[in-house]
Amino acid sequence: MLPRSLLLTLIFVLSPAALCGSALAQPFSENQLTTAQRLMDQALESDLGYEIVESLTTEVGPRLAGTEAESRARDWAIAMLKAQGFENVRNEPFPVPLWVRGVETAAITSPYPQPLAITALGGSSSTGPDGVEAEIVAFKDLASVEALPDGSLKGKIIFIDEPMTRTQDGSGYGVAVRKRRTTAYEGVRLGAVAALIRSVGTSTHRFAHTGQMQRLTEGEREGVPTAALSAPDADQLTRSLKRGQPVRVKMVLTPETLPPSESGNVIGEIVGSEKPEEIILVGAHLDSWDLGTGAVDDGAGVGIVTAAARLVAAENPKRTIRVVLFGAEEVGLVGAKAYAEQHWDDLDNHMLAAESDFGAGRIWRFETRVHESKLETAQAIGNAMRGIGVGPGPNTAYGGPDLTYVRAAGVPVVTLKQDGLDYFDLHHTPNDTFDKIDPADMAQNVAAYAAFIYLASEVDAHFRGDEE
Amino acid sequence: MLPRSLLLTLIFVLSPAALCGSALAQPFSENQLTTAQRLMDQALESDLGYEIVESLTTEVGPRLAGTEAESRARDWAIAMLKAQGFENVRNEPFPVPLWVRGVETAAITSPYPQPLAITALGGSSSTGPDGVEAEIVAFKDLASVEALPDGSLKGKIIFIDEPMTRTQDGSGYGVAVRKRRTTAYEGVRLGAVAALIRSVGTSTHRFAHTGQMQRLTEGEREGVPTAALSAPDADQLTRSLKRGQPVRVKMVLTPETLPPSESGNVIGEIVGSEKPEEIILVGAHLDSWDLGTGAVDDGAGVGIVTAAARLVAAENPKRTIRVVLFGAEEVGLVGAKAYAEQHWDDLDNHMLAAESDFGAGRIWRFETRVHESKLETAQAIGNAMRGIGVGPGPNTAYGGPDLTYVRAAGVPVVTLKQDGLDYFDLHHTPNDTFDKIDPADMAQNVAAYAAFIYLASEVDAHFRGDEE
Repeated sequence: MLPRSLLLTLIFVLSPAALCGSALAQPFSENQLTTAQRLMDQALESDLGYEIVESLTTEVGPRLAGTEAESRARDWAIAMLKAQGFENVRNEPFPVPLWVRGVETAAITSPYPQPLAITALGGSSSTGPDGVEAEIVAFKDLASVEALPDGSLKGKIIFIDEPMTRTQDGSGYGVAVRKRRTTAYEGVRLGAVAALIRSVGTSTHRFAHTGQMQRLTEGEREGVPTAALSAPDADQLTRSLKRGQPVRVKMVLTPETLPPSESGNVIGEIVGSEKPEEIILVGAHLDSWDLGTGAVDDGAGVGIVTAAARLVAAENPKRTIRVVLFGAEEVGLVGAKAYAEQHWDDLDNHMLAAESDFGAGRIWRFETRVHESKLETAQAIGNAMRGIGVGPGPNTAYGGPDLTYVRAAGVPVVTLKQDGLDYFDLHHTPNDTFDKIDPADMAQNVAAYAAFIYLASEVDAHFRGDEE
Repeated sequence: MLPRSLLLTLIFVLSPAALCGSALAQPFSENQLTTAQRLMDQALESDLGYEIVESLTTEVGPRLAGTEAESRARDWAIAMLKAQGFENVRNEPFPVPLWVRGVETAAITSPYPQPLAITALGGSSSTGPDGVEAEIVAFKDLASVEALPDGSLKGKIIFIDEPMTRTQDGSGYGVAVRKRRTTAYEGVRLGAVAALIRSVGTSTHRFAHTGQMQRLTEGEREGVPTAALSAPDADQLTRSLKRGQPVRVKMVLTPETLPPSESGNVIGEIVGSEKPEEIILVGAHLDSWDLGTGAVDDGAGVGIVTAAARLVAAENPKRTIRVVLFGAEEVGLVGAKAYAEQHWDDLDNHMLAAESDFGAGRIWRFETRVHESKLETAQAIGNAMRGIGVGPGPNTAYGGPDLTYVRAAGVPVVTLKQDGLDYFDLHHTPNDTFDKIDPADMAQNVAAYAAFIYLASEVDAHFRGDEE
């Protein structure tokens, strides 16, 4: 008798599952897999996704939520989706808060006078045109600030010099972003006059990274004026402080919170040929921060999901493919919430959803969040992408920021995980521009999304526990 | 009889010159070469050069010629040179024109409204606070603009989208910089209202590179307001123009030319033990552009030559080592000219001169400009640096910008040529900050300069034709 371990090894080696991935549970016909492969081959030869980002970033450029520029982006998106042959192209409007950047300057005034490169965080209050000048008190992280007793930084400027870890999967962001969200309110509690944080980002270039602060809830006091320093400027301030003398900084921030404005989610569909009521949602967000032209965040996503859906249209997919270009993502997932509310009664018909919002790096992993009983079926979709470098991932997919509310409502999601090693070099900076995108990487993304969209529309299964 | 070519080969292979460089003409004793090697070893273990740049960029930061900041840099330099044990530490003042930056904004106003990242060129005229708005006319290079008849761009904004070639030796700069120098004056000739150039630089990041325009000579008309666009913005403007509609841009530049101010060359010496009247000059420039903190341009040079001279001091050099930290280099070699004038009667005593002003990249070549009869002797200095990666170069050395006038007056110069592949990514941008410098690269530079300074002070020869 063979030892048990060797027997298991033989079974594993000889099993079709070991030879072909999830072949035992293969939910796709040879024909379907051949079509998926053909779609990927076509995508790799196509520049459509790249051209869409080129058009958006050139013809619209920056498109902050609630501004006239975001409205022009919606006009652009509607025209583009129609030109690409999508059906039911429409804008689904919703109200959005409107915050606009003003003057933003800072300088060390003593002992080593020189300017510092900063940018206001989204939602920051204003210093007024005369600014504030005060002594800097530095901390290594947000937790050190949170540990202080109320009123203990009266008249000071808080400085948190906490770096962000560079990771392929972007996991450094969640840790680093907390200080962007809450430092302004800690400042109020502590009696500070303003705050500076080291940018939430990984770039060593002299760009400050903006990004939204946590939104006020009813009755909360506005935070202190708060800005991000570029990494070289955070280093400079830290070096100045290490010399031992008190360091004073003057900051002028004059952003304004204007009356609420309008945003919208732009939608285009390929109506399903057999199950038109069942929806495969692929999304990206149309708005961007105001500093760059929103190329990697998230023009790339707009190009990727649109080009992929466009390719699949020729295959006459069984389910409806819905491209959702969300508005007002950056300022607090406002479009995501509006979509979930406006489509609440139809969410059960959302079979599977994915958002592309992590730049233009190659997809390296297919992650799912489906019912345990449907895992093999879902993984079979990812297996079709092995040839373009996509490996299997866990069943804890996030899906993307704009799927936060639909995911919470039970919609199964997948993440076509992009390589984000360099993403936070550009994220929320003036340097997020079209030239940073590699067309070959974009094409690989479109290929993976095309395979995903096609197979998700064909598969004879749902991804929830309570199926059919 | 052996064929002539083989014979020559044998002679070459067997000759001591082929085995040991210029051994036939070896002007240095074993002892001297051992000392040079020890100095290099010490330099590679030392952070002194790096620490000097850290101090200058942190405690002074940007230091535009003629400003209060440049004056603080001179105070810093005098204190630093004294602290490092230099003798005859002094400031040699001279007058300098004073131009200061103002507001600088630009935006495409139609058909694709969005901001553009620009910076005024040094010496630019002002548009006034209301700015100018006009249609863009684009050209691929300066020559195309120069070919136009007078008055042929009335009311337009000139845009020259000429890229710069990335090279190790910096040779792309001379070609690309012409448009920075003269476009503003071409604008006057052609009737244009303003001009934009693609930045003279190699960065793909969203930084515009400033730099001095050609200075006016008596009776010349001021140029049109002129700014540099970052490379991504130049690309964006070109993409906008390619769509075929007229593209209009609004520019606001409010720099000011103020009454002439004062600058100065800061000097420190190690007085020679045997030939104190004979000078080995090593230089760098103390001023910087206002946008960055002048780390690679030219804080690095200040650190390199100072640290190297400091190391050599312990060897009690025969000749006087003179460290010259030039003022007002960036705005037109004003300090270089002042030095040549102020030391005109003593230039015959300048035995050899070198300036470090090409960043902080490793030295890879030793170039000379000496009398043909002294070439082997000069090369013997470079040969001592082979072990740290320095190869032989031609006898056409430039020496450095601040040696322009003394070189023209016959002072022999050498160039310890740095690797400049990445130098023009940072040059004249806000991104020229301390974090960009690699301490190991700095130490290699200090090592090469220490060997150079020591051997140049020891060698029993001059480098002119009319020696001793």
